[in-house]
This record gives sequence, structure tokens and C-alpha cells, in this order.
Amino acid sequence: MTGHVVALCGGVGGAKLAHGLTMALPPDELSIIVNTGDDFTHLGLHIAPDLDSVIYALAGLSDPVRGWGRRDETWTFMHALQGMGGENWFRLGDGDLAMHVERSWRLAQGAKMSEVTAHLCQQLGIAVRVLPMSDDPVRTRVLTSDGWLDFQEYFVHRQCRPVVREFEFAGAETARAQPAALAALERRDLRAIVICPSNPFVSVEPILAVPEIRAAIGRSDAPVVAVTPIIGGKAIKGPAAKMMLELGLDVSGAAVARRYAGIIDGFVIDETDSIPQPLPDITFFGAATLMNSTDDRLRLAHAVLHAADTLRGISAVA
Amino acid sequence: MTGHVVALCGGVGGAKLAHGLTMALPPDELSIIVNTGDDFTHLGLHIAPDLDSVIYALAGLSDPVRGWGRRDETWTFMHALQGMGGENWFRLGDGDLAMHVERSWRLAQGAKMSEVTAHLCQQLGIAVRVLPMSDDPVRTRVLTSDGWLDFQEYFVHRQCRPVVREFEFAGAETARAQPAALAALERRDLRAIVICPSNPFVSVEPILAVPEIRAAIGRSDAPVVAVTPIIGGKAIKGPAAKMMLELGLDVSGAAVARRYAGIIDGFVIDETDSIPQPLPDITFFGAATLMNSTDDRLRLAHAVLHAADTLRGISAVA
Repeated sequence: MTGHVVALCGGVGGAKLAHGLTMALPPDELSIIVNTGDDFTHLGLHIAPDLDSVIYALAGLSDPVRGWGRRDETWTFMHALQGMGGENWFRLGDGDLAMHVERSWRLAQGAKMSEVTAHLCQQLGIAVRVLPMSDDPVRTRVLTSDGWLDFQEYFVHRQCRPVVREFEFAGAETARAQPAALAALERRDLRAIVICPSNPFVSVEPILAVPEIRAAIGRSDAPVVAVTPIIGGKAIKGPAAKMMLELGLDVSGAAVARRYAGIIDGFVIDETDSIPQPLPDITFFGAATLMNSTDDRLRLAHAVLHAADTLRGISAVA
Repeated sequence: MTGHVVALCGGVGGAKLAHGLTMALPPDELSIIVNTGDDFTHLGLHIAPDLDSVIYALAGLSDPVRGWGRRDETWTFMHALQGMGGENWFRLGDGDLAMHVERSWRLAQGAKMSEVTAHLCQQLGIAVRVLPMSDDPVRTRVLTSDGWLDFQEYFVHRQCRPVVREFEFAGAETARAQPAALAALERRDLRAIVICPSNPFVSVEPILAVPEIRAAIGRSDAPVVAVTPIIGGKAIKGPAAKMMLELGLDVSGAAVARRYAGIIDGFVIDETDSIPQPLPDITFFGAATLMNSTDDRLRLAHAVLHAADTLRGISAVA
């Protein structure tokens, strides 16, 4: 089966499946729409953590051990910055800084985020389209037991310790979808929309909060398939499970699926979890969703595409 | 003898004598006025090479081998930047970047260059006052065989290869002297004004091009003593000798002294050079001006102060 695939993607976990999809598909059959809600400005630098995670994963530059940032990283900048009393709660690797400095400089020259991203991808040999959800600023904020916090303040500085109550995506209501991202969602040959195994609250929902993106997904005939970020009641990485608990949700793939009700047609849970109670309009699929190796990424990509193609078959029959 | 000493200083060579003076004098008896004419903006970062050289020298952070930048430097940023096709003609060390990022960020928040410098010095344990010549931008430009070039374009990118004809210090005419620098030059207890062994054309003359600074030096009763940057017909470092040749000057301490005629009262040449023909109003002194060790720096500082105090004695007698 051919046709265009659009993946919605947050940081590290989502980037792994995005990488799998790049291995499974020709470059012109895939567009990756990336969350920019956790972008922020730090020390005057524009930092886009999810875009960086995706770019590093696709360029083969991710650190395989630390789980974030660049491989072969050094930390001389941070040591020097600490030595001069600078802000050190957000760790900036020396190689990672090249991304932030180059991006910030190009943005300051008037380039759009999508243009900078396209340039960096081209330089790093990434053939697939990596698209920020919007060229307009959207900023995720978290209502916590300590009040409203900017996302990185909550996520990095306070290490997700405050109890979360609510999220907002400042600017999303008026943000325009990045035009190529919107065009990809509106393609007539759209094969599938994939929601990567990213944090639903702070990675996927900021993308869905951009009205044109949500509307385009709603209008699309293509199957929408999400992949669970929860395995065996735990998040593979990050605060998704802690957030679900604090929001009074079950910590399960099924609860994530319910969160996406009305948006998705299919949901891939981990093969080690039991198939949940059926949900109206959501078909469950089982697959090995833990991605430790490159092979795992490719295998999951194929499983997700197979789920989507199956749904299309079901829909064609119905 | 006591009293306040003001040193005018460019980059690496000047910074060594400035360091010697900090060892020879109590912190409150020394102010160091630093050239900012070779400051520039690169990749959106405000880079102040001479201030950095002075700060690194005084904080014990200078690289002892390379001759510029920070000790224990790493280059991961540059490698990563090259990997994404970024501008790589100006080498930015990972530790050095902390200075540029922290300074740029503080300037962008509205701090003055002198405030940022004072903050960084305080953080790095530098007790003496390090003062940019001006908080206003002054930019050294070089008329060369390739036309007018910004200083770093000439100095770093083209590695001083074009033949120099003329210099200009854009903005100097309207730049205000940094107030504490001006106040130091106007102190009633001024013991000496020291012109460090820096490049006369692109390190010292930009400072002298700030009208209030030049006027304050002219009005001062304190002896003004310069130290040769030329030993045995060669510059210890940098393009000073090449520039002198290209401008049709002798490459000698005496020629530098003549360049400073009307400004200085004394000139320290290297002890291995012969004492030049006498010049009206300039007294020559001999000293070991090559500073390979910390002891050399202190010894030269004492020699310069001794020369100044001798001139004051001559003047008191006359």
C-alpha cells in the first residue's frame, strides 16, 4: 500500500517511532509534525527540545545512553557557565549548543521556524519533511500545586515534582498550522495519520490544540492510529504516568486511547498488556511498542502502518 | 609610592601586563581600560575578544599554550556547528561560549557592557576594576588591499593577509567614555597611566579615539608610560610588525614611541634592543618586556611603575 503518512510527534519516544517510519517509508511518503509547545528561550537562545529530539534521532545523532541530547556530548560550556554564576538548571551540552545558537541566529535574522528546521535537516542529511506544528509561538503551561508554571520550569527546573491539574497551550488558539504540515494532512493520497508514543498531555495535545491541525485531522478520511506511551502501567520515559495519576486517570494504554476518543480510529497497545474493553470507534491492536533497538523502531513502524491499512480495509468493507 | 594606576589594554599581550599590575598593586589602586573596538556580533552572540583576554588572564583561565581563549578548552560546539554547515571561520571554544552567551543574554536584557563586565569579574573573583573603554559601540575597520574590512573579517577570517593602509574606529567620535574609566583618569591621586604592550593601531588607538579618554589623558599630570609590543624588530604576537611594515614605518619600539608622541612621557623598550635616538618629551627606559612567566609579568609591572615614578621625580625637579 502506498500513500502519504503524517506522524504527530513529541520528543524522545515519538522520535524513535518517527525514525522507524523513515526506515519503513520512502522520504516523500512521510511528513513528521513536531510539537513546539515546549520550546522556550533560555539565556537568549531559542530552544526547541522536541524538534531537536526528532532531528537527532533522524540524523543518527541521539545519545543512546542518556536518552536525550546528542551523542559524544561534552559539558565544558556548562562548567564554565557555572563558574561565572550563570543559570545552570537547564543542561546545555556543547554540541547541542550548536543547534540552539544556529537556530536562534537564523530566527533572529527573520527566518521562520519551519525554514530553519528545513535548513538544519538538509544540512544533516535528513530527507523526510520535519515540520514544526506552527511557525507561531505556542507555549505549554502547567497548572500545578505550585500554581501556573511554564513547561520547562515544571519539567526541568522542578523535575516534574509539582502535582499537575491542568494544561494550557498559550497562543494555540490563534496559531496558524505550519502550511506544509496542513497540506500534508489535506493530501488526497493520505494513507494514515500516526500519533507517536509521546506524552498525550504535553507532546500531542499541543499539536492538536492548533485549530487548523485538529480540523484537518477531523476532516480526513485517512485512519488515525495512536501508539501507547504506557506499557504495563508505566511510562517508558518522562512524566506521562505521574500526570495520569495526578489527573485521576488510569495509568494504562486504554486511558490514553479514551483521551484520544473522537480523534483516533485505532490504538496500538503493547503486546504485553491485555486488550482493553472495547471502545466505540476505536479498534485496538497489539504490538511490541518498546523501542530499544533500531530494529524495534522499524518493526513498530510496520505494525502501525499495518494497523492503519487494516482500518482502511475495515472502513472500505463497512 | 601610592596612588591610582590606569592601564590601557588590548588583548593577550596587554592582558599579561595587566595581570602583572594586579600582582604589583592593591586592587583599589588599579583600573584597567580595555579596547572594545574589536568587539563584534557573530552568530547572534556579542563577542568582546580583548575584554575576554583580560578577564581570562586575571582569573587565571587563559590557555597557556594556544595563546588565546580559555584553558582546558574543548571544541565540540565547533564540530557540531560544522556538521550543520554553520559559519566556522571564527573558532568558538565550548568554555569560551559560556562568556559569549552569558554576556549576550545580559546585554539583550538591557545591561551595559560595563555592568556585564563588572558582574563577570565579580563572579570570577577578579577584584580589580576592568572597564570597557565605552559602553557605546566602537568598531575598528581596516582599509586594506581588499577594501574596507571589519576588523574580525581582516584579523580572523582573512588571517591578516590583506595589506593594511588605514584604520577607522566607527562610532568613536560620538562614543562616551565609560564613566568609571573617565573618573579613574581624572583622579587627583593618579600615579601613572600605563599603555600596555598591545597593538598600537588596533588595540590602543581605538581607546585613544574616544574623545573623552584622549582629552583626559592629555589633561592629566600623571606620567604616561607605554610598553613596546615590538622586540628585536618583531611583534611578540599578532600583526603589529606586519602592519608597521605595510604602513611604511620602522618595525621597532622607537617607531611605536613616535606613534605615541604627544601622548606619552615615557616608553619602555626591551632591554635587548638598543636605546633609540632621543625623542623630545619622551624618556626611554629599558626592561625585560617578554612575558613568558607570571614572574615576568610582575617584574615588568614593577619596571613600568618605576619608570612612571622616575618620570614624576624628573617632572617634580624640572
